Amino acid sequence: MRAAFYEGQETIRIGPCVPVPPGAGEVQIHVSHCGICGTDLHLFHGKMDHRVTFPQVIGHEMSGTIAAVGEGVGGWATGERVTVRPLNPCGACPACRAGHSHVCQKLKFIGIDAPGAMQRSWTVPAHTLHRLPDTLSFEQGALVEPLAVACHDVRLGEVRAGDFAVVLGGGPIGALVASVANYEGARVVVSEVNPFRIRLARELGLEVVDPRETDMVALVERETGGAGADVVFEVSGSPAAAELMTKIARVRGRIVVVGIFPEPPKVDLFRFFWRELRMTGARVYEPRDFEKAIAIAASGRIALTRLITDTAPLEGLESALRRMESGGQVMKVLIRCSE
Amino acid sequence: MRAAFYEGQETIRIGPCVPVPPGAGEVQIHVSHCGICGTDLHLFHGKMDHRVTFPQVIGHEMSGTIAAVGEGVGGWATGERVTVRPLNPCGACPACRAGHSHVCQKLKFIGIDAPGAMQRSWTVPAHTLHRLPDTLSFEQGALVEPLAVACHDVRLGEVRAGDFAVVLGGGPIGALVASVANYEGARVVVSEVNPFRIRLARELGLEVVDPRETDMVALVERETGGAGADVVFEVSGSPAAAELMTKIARVRGRIVVVGIFPEPPKVDLFRFFWRELRMTGARVYEPRDFEKAIAIAASGRIALTRLITDTAPLEGLESALRRMESGGQVMKVLIRCSE
Repeated sequence: MRAAFYEGQETIRIGPCVPVPPGAGEVQIHVSHCGICGTDLHLFHGKMDHRVTFPQVIGHEMSGTIAAVGEGVGGWATGERVTVRPLNPCGACPACRAGHSHVCQKLKFIGIDAPGAMQRSWTVPAHTLHRLPDTLSFEQGALVEPLAVACHDVRLGEVRAGDFAVVLGGGPIGALVASVANYEGARVVVSEVNPFRIRLARELGLEVVDPRETDMVALVERETGGAGADVVFEVSGSPAAAELMTKIARVRGRIVVVGIFPEPPKVDLFRFFWRELRMTGARVYEPRDFEKAIAIAASGRIALTRLITDTAPLEGLESALRRMESGGQVMKVLIRCSE
Repeated sequence: MRAAFYEGQETIRIGPCVPVPPGAGEVQIHVSHCGICGTDLHLFHGKMDHRVTFPQVIGHEMSGTIAAVGEGVGGWATGERVTVRPLNPCGACPACRAGHSHVCQKLKFIGIDAPGAMQRSWTVPAHTLHRLPDTLSFEQGALVEPLAVACHDVRLGEVRAGDFAVVLGGGPIGALVASVANYEGARVVVSEVNPFRIRLARELGLEVVDPRETDMVALVERETGGAGADVVFEVSGSPAAAELMTKIARVRGRIVVVGIFPEPPKVDLFRFFWRELRMTGARVYEPRDFEKAIAIAASGRIALTRLITDTAPLEGLESALRRMESGGQVMKVLIRCSE
C-alpha cells in the first residue's frame, strides 16, 4: 500500500501508505482511481502551503470501495463502491447556519486541509460518501467530483431547455459545464484557444470556437437574433473573458463565475446596470449536485471517459503535474492508487 | 405657459411652451412640479447630446393634472392628478418580447430621447400614467419617480424583514433606497462622505457612517456576528465602493448595482467565487415599482419632502444645476412649472 506525498517546493514523494483505522462516524476506503485537479497543480506550485500539513497526501477526485466502517456509521457496508464529496464544514458559522455549509466560512477541503485520496487506504467522514452504481467504472467514478462541480455551476446558472449558453474556457471543468448544459437542453458554444482542448471538446460533441478567429460578440448576436446569451459561464479566469462576459449576455442574462481570478479584473458594471445583468459565483457543490452527477454519468449521455488523456500509477503523478503546467496535450489525468 | 429648453453647451433657455394637442393614445398634462435628476445634470454637461433633438425640454420627475385626453384613451379623465413613468419601449426587441420592456434594447426615455416635463404643457403616451392620490401633494408626487427607482432596486435586491443592508452612497437615490429597505423591515447602514448629505440622511431617520472615519468591513462584521451584509446597494459609482461591496457581503449575499460607472472598475471575482456572491444590475423601474412608490409615499412613513432642499421657478433651473455640480449643500431641487 502506497501514497503520494506533497513535500513542498514542487516535490512529490511516493512512500508507504499509513492506514488510519476509521474512528466514530468515519469509513476507511480502498481507493481505486484519483484524478488530478487544477487545484492539485496550484497546491504543487506552493500556492496553498499555508493550508497544508507536511508531508501531505493530495487528491480529491476519486473512486473506491469501503474497506472498514467506524462506530456509529449507519447505511454503509464494507465492499460498497463509493466516491467522496471532499468537504468538511464546521456546522457553526453563519454560512453553515444559513444552510450553505458547502461554502462554510471555515470549510476544510479534504485533500488540501486534510489528507487526500492519492493513497491506497483513505479514511474520511461517512457524511462525505456517495454510492456509485455498478454500471459505472472506477474511472468514471473518479470523474464524478468534477462533474458535480459542473452540475452545481449549471444549476446556479438556472439553465433551461432552449437556452443559449456560452462557456468561456474549454478545460476539464469548462467541457463538463458545457456537457451538462447540453444535457439540460441548452445550445452551448464553448470558447477556447488551446488547439488540443478544442479538438478534445469537439470529440465530446461540443460546439467550440477559437475567440481569436471568431468574433464572439457577432456570433452570439447573430445566433440569438440580437438578444445575447441567456447564460455565460466564465471558467477561464482570464481578464479577456471577464471583459467578454458582459458583452455577450442578454438583458437580464445570467453570468456564472467559476474561474479563479488571482487579481480582480476590470468588470463593466455599467453594462450590468444597463442590461440588468445578474452574476453569481459558484464554488464546489452540494450533495444534490453529486447525486445529479452520478445520475448523468450513469445515463451514458456524456462521453465522460474521453476527457481522460492519461492514466498512470502513483509514480506518474509528478510528471503528469509537469505536463499539466505546460498547458499542452493534456486534459484529465487519472492516477491508479490500487497498485 | 413656459418651458425650459436645453440648447447644448451647458445652456438653458426659458421660452414659451409649445403645447402639443394629444394624439391617439396620448394625454396632455399641465405640469405642476418637476425634480432635477442627476441624469439631467449629466445631460446639461453634454454627455447625452447624441440622444437629444435641440432645443430639448428636459425633466422626467414630475407631477401634474390631465388637461386633455386623446382619441382612444380609456380610463383617464381631465383633471386627474398624475405622475408619469417616462419610458417608451419599442415592444418588438428581444428584451421587450421577453417581458423586460423597461430595459428595452431601443428604449426611448422621455425627457432625454423625447421632450421632457419642464414645461407647463406636456403631451405623453397614456400608458405612462400613474394616478396620484389626493393625499399626496404635487411636491410629493414629483418624488414618486426617484422613489420608484428605489423600490425597483430594493425589489431586485430581494430585501426581507430582518435583513442587514448597506447602501454605498447617500445622495437622493441612496437615501431613498435606504428608506425603502427600512420600510421593508431591514436594518440599513448608509455609507456617505459628504457632510451635508450625511446630516440630511440622518434627518430622514437613517443610520449613516462616513467610511473615512469608520472601518466599514469591521462594522459590518461586528454587527452581523461575522456573517456579512445580506444585501449591498452600490449607488455611488465609485471604484472604492466597487472594491468595498465584495468585502462586506455575506456568503450568498446580494449586491445591487445602481450607480453609474463611466469606466469599468476592478471587481474581486475571486470573492464572488469564494462566497458565491450574487450581483444584479438595476435600472429604472417597472409599473409595479411606481405603484409601490405611490403607496409608500401615501403611507407617510418616509419623510420624503425632507429630501427637497430647494424649490425654484423655471428660471432657477440653470443655477440649480450649477449648485448640483458643485456637490455641496443640495439634495433634491424641484422646479415649479405651473408659474
